[in-house]
Amino acid sequence: MTDVSAEDGFVEHRRLIVAGTGIAGLTAAIYAARSNNDPLVLEGTEPGGQLTLTTEVDNFPGFPEGISGPELVNNMKEQAKRFGSEVKNGVVADVDDSERPFRVELTNGDVYTADALIAASGASARTLGIPGEDDLMGYGLSTCATCDGAFFRDQKIVVVGGGDAAMEEASFLTKFASTVYLVHRREEFRAEDYWIDRVMEQVDDGDIELMLNTEVTELHGSPEAGVETVTMVRHPEGHPTDRLDDSQTEEFEFDAGAVFYAIGHTPNTDYLENTGVRMDPEGYLKTNGGFEGGQTETDVPGIFGAGDVVDFHYQQAITAGGMGCKAAIDADDYLEGLDRSSPETAEPAAAESDD
Amino acid sequence: MTDVSAEDGFVEHRRLIVAGTGIAGLTAAIYAARSNNDPLVLEGTEPGGQLTLTTEVDNFPGFPEGISGPELVNNMKEQAKRFGSEVKNGVVADVDDSERPFRVELTNGDVYTADALIAASGASARTLGIPGEDDLMGYGLSTCATCDGAFFRDQKIVVVGGGDAAMEEASFLTKFASTVYLVHRREEFRAEDYWIDRVMEQVDDGDIELMLNTEVTELHGSPEAGVETVTMVRHPEGHPTDRLDDSQTEEFEFDAGAVFYAIGHTPNTDYLENTGVRMDPEGYLKTNGGFEGGQTETDVPGIFGAGDVVDFHYQQAITAGGMGCKAAIDADDYLEGLDRSSPETAEPAAAESDD
Repeated sequence: MTDVSAEDGFVEHRRLIVAGTGIAGLTAAIYAARSNNDPLVLEGTEPGGQLTLTTEVDNFPGFPEGISGPELVNNMKEQAKRFGSEVKNGVVADVDDSERPFRVELTNGDVYTADALIAASGASARTLGIPGEDDLMGYGLSTCATCDGAFFRDQKIVVVGGGDAAMEEASFLTKFASTVYLVHRREEFRAEDYWIDRVMEQVDDGDIELMLNTEVTELHGSPEAGVETVTMVRHPEGHPTDRLDDSQTEEFEFDAGAVFYAIGHTPNTDYLENTGVRMDPEGYLKTNGGFEGGQTETDVPGIFGAGDVVDFHYQQAITAGGMGCKAAIDADDYLEGLDRSSPETAEPAAAESDD
Repeated sequence: MTDVSAEDGFVEHRRLIVAGTGIAGLTAAIYAARSNNDPLVLEGTEPGGQLTLTTEVDNFPGFPEGISGPELVNNMKEQAKRFGSEVKNGVVADVDDSERPFRVELTNGDVYTADALIAASGASARTLGIPGEDDLMGYGLSTCATCDGAFFRDQKIVVVGGGDAAMEEASFLTKFASTVYLVHRREEFRAEDYWIDRVMEQVDDGDIELMLNTEVTELHGSPEAGVETVTMVRHPEGHPTDRLDDSQTEEFEFDAGAVFYAIGHTPNTDYLENTGVRMDPEGYLKTNGGFEGGQTETDVPGIFGAGDVVDFHYQQAITAGGMGCKAAIDADDYLEGLDRSSPETAEPAAAESDD
C-alpha cells in the first residue's frame, strides 16, 4: 500500500468528500454535516450546478412565488455551512479505489484521502459537434441563456432543442432578441406543457418563431464578428441529418446573431473511470436503487451517486435534492459500519459520533 | 360496465386525483398543475401530512434558517394552487380499478372517476397495542409532541422510541416537562447523530433521562385523570418483552403524567386493497423503481405511488418531494399516452394540453 500522505500534493484525510455543489451535492452536505460526517464539499467546474443558470425556479416546492436559481443554491450552501460543511473550490480529477481510504486527486494537484465519496458532480451541456462550434463557443455560441442572453439585444437568436430547457431559454431570450428562432429536429416537443403553452403564446405574439423538423449543421462567423450565418437542413418528416440524401431534404443558410444550445447534458463522471463504479455507455452511474436503504450505493462500497450523474430522466431540482439526501444517509450508514469494524483507525469525529 | 356517473354520490370526472397533501402530494400537485393535468388534491385524514406536526424543519434544503413544518406545507399548498391545483377536504375510502376511468369513492360517500391516481397518502403513527392505550389516547397518551406537549407542563413525560422522531420529540418536550424519560427497547439509537448529540446534551443538563433496554407494557389512568403510572420491563440485553420469562427481566411501575409514542408509522394504503396494486406485508406500495421513467408506477397502469406510502427507509421531506415530482411526471406521461390512444374520449383539458 502506497503512503498517500507522503505524496507531494497531499492535503489531508477526510471522512467524507462530496464532489459537486448543485442541489444534490448541497443537500447531501446538509444531511452529512448534521450526521457529524464533517463533509468537504468540492465546487467542481460549475459551482452551484445547473440551477445557477436558471433565472427563476417556480417548481421547487416551498417557494410559492418562485425563487431565483442562484438564490436557492446560495440558501442551500449557507444551510450546509451552518451545520459544519466545508465548501471549497476544487475539481476532482481522479479517484483511486484500489486502496482504503480512497485517494482523491484534484485537477490542481491537491490530493486527499477519504473514507467515503458522494459523486454529485452533475452533468454538463452537450454540443452538436458541427463545424464552427469550437471557434465560436463563447463568441456568439452559448449553452447558457441566462449567462449570455443580454449580449445579443435586438438580434436574431437561434435556440436549438425541444425539451424544457430549450423552451425556457427561448422564452427567456425574447427579452433581448428581435426574434427567437426555436430549431427542433422533430415536429413535437418533449417539454412540460407549461413551457409549451408559454412558448406558444410567444409564438402568437410574434416573439418566437418555430423551425420544426430542422437541424443546424454548420456555424459561420469569427471570434471577432461572432455568429453571422447558420447552415440548416429541413425534412418534412423530421430528423433531417439522418436523411441528407432524401430529395425532400432542403439545406439553407440562415442569418443569426447568436446560437444557444439546449440539447441535453453529459454526466461529469470521468474521474470515476478508473474505479469499479459501474456506468452506462453515456457515463451515468448505476446505483443500487430499490426500496430499502443503500439506494445510492455504487458497485464500489463507500462511493455513492446522487443527482444528474445518476438521473437521466427526471432531472429536476427536487429529485436531485431527494437523491442527495439519500446519498448522505447511505454514506452515514457506511461510515458507521466502518467505525464499528475498525474503531482503532476511526477518525476522532467518527468515534465521537458513536458515543 | 356500470355507469358510475348515474350513481347517487357521483360528483365529477377528473383527469388526475392526488390522494394526500403532505410533501409528496403537494409536490405532485405543483408539477401536475404545471403539466395541465388539472389535479384534484384530497387532503386525507391528516391535512398537510406529518410535517405539520414538526415545529422546526432544519434539513429541508433552501431554508438556511429553518422553517416551521406548517409554514413549509402551507407554502407548497399555495404554490400548488397558484398553478391551478384544486385542494379539497376528503378521504379516499376505496378505489375500483376493474373499470376505466377508475372509480374513486370517498369516506363521505362522494364518488369521482379519474383517469389517473397518485397515492401520496403517507403513513400514520404506530401504537404499541398495550392495555390502557385505547382509553388514554388523547388523554395523556399522544403521538404528537408538537400538538400536545404544552398540556403537560412541569410533569414527568415518557417518550417511547429510538429514531429521529423520538429524539426530536424528547428534545422538544424538555420545554414543558419537569423531566423527559426516553424509553427505548435497545441500547443504541438509530437516530441521526445530530439528534443523538442534542439529546445527549440535554441528558448532561438533566432535562432528559435515558431508560434503555426498556419497554412500556401497560398504561394506567383514566380519561379524567390522564396517565398516572406506566408499567415497564427492562432486560440488560434489550428487547425485554421478548424475554419476559428471563430471570434478568425486571418489571416496575413508573409515575408519569404523559406518554408520547414515536415508534414509527403504518402506510395509509387500505383504500387500494381491492386493486391490483402490489404491496408488501406492511402495506407499503411496490412501485417500479429503476433508473428510467415510470419509477413511481404501481402494478396498475394509471396508479402511481409517492412519499411515505412507498418509502419505509429514508422518510425525509426532501425525498418525499422528489418522489411526488416523479409521480406527477410519470402520470403526465401516462395521461398523454391515453390521449393519443383514444383522442375521442379525452377530456377537454387533455385535448387542449396536446395542442
